[in-house]
Amino acid sequence: MIRVRPAEQAGTAGKPGSRFTGDAFAYLTLPATDGVTINTVTFAPAARTHWHSHERGQILQVLSGRGLIQTRGEEPLVLRQGDTVWIPPGETHWHGAAPDSSLTHTAISLGVTDWLEPVVDYPGAAQAEETSS
Amino acid sequence: MIRVRPAEQAGTAGKPGSRFTGDAFAYLTLPATDGVTINTVTFAPAARTHWHSHERGQILQVLSGRGLIQTRGEEPLVLRQGDTVWIPPGETHWHGAAPDSSLTHTAISLGVTDWLEPVVDYPGAAQAEETSS
Repeated sequence: MIRVRPAEQAGTAGKPGSRFTGDAFAYLTLPATDGVTINTVTFAPAARTHWHSHERGQILQVLSGRGLIQTRGEEPLVLRQGDTVWIPPGETHWHGAAPDSSLTHTAISLGVTDWLEPVVDYPGAAQAEETSS
Repeated sequence: MIRVRPAEQAGTAGKPGSRFTGDAFAYLTLPATDGVTINTVTFAPAARTHWHSHERGQILQVLSGRGLIQTRGEEPLVLRQGDTVWIPPGETHWHGAAPDSSLTHTAISLGVTDWLEPVVDYPGAAQAEETSS
């Protein structure tokens, strides 16, 4: 068993890896252990991950702010404080902040992450506003 | 992808299943999906799970209160607000409240849970006090 206390978490000053667009900041809660990695990530407005998928899926827990998440081929969904999201194994998606809000979420990633290209069709403010729920 | 909002979570009025000692209350955040289940559980003082293990491991995130967790054959560890715990696949353990405090944690369980016998050697208040860290 591994117990990690808040003071032991590794904070980063800049981008959590190179697979992000815009400014993002991460605290590494659980370094990769038995294939499980836990990060708490803050995205500046309009910042987001590249498209990617997780070998065994991912859980997101939204701590604050407002964001967006999109599965390839589907419409984006809004993320709000208190939301929990399950992304199934192998499902290609991206997540990040709304155009006009920061977003902080905990990300529990299961298995290897397969990183893909940047998100170029990021929704503008008007479109994100229409994505009301 | 499944997005669960707080208002959609299923609260229970009593024990989350029959594999607990004492009073415990659960909100089901993510019903079992692709083998992943997320519960937020509150234990009254001295309440705890039976011994058990998880096929693919478990993550605990302590939201409030103070608790205890023990791996079979090891000393108990104290759980405090902000702690994150990783329990590896197949590791037999129990978790619950301290003798003199409630505990609320989110539990992310991976795969099938194998339930075992009740915990009979639950630490008394004095012993839990000595388990200082």
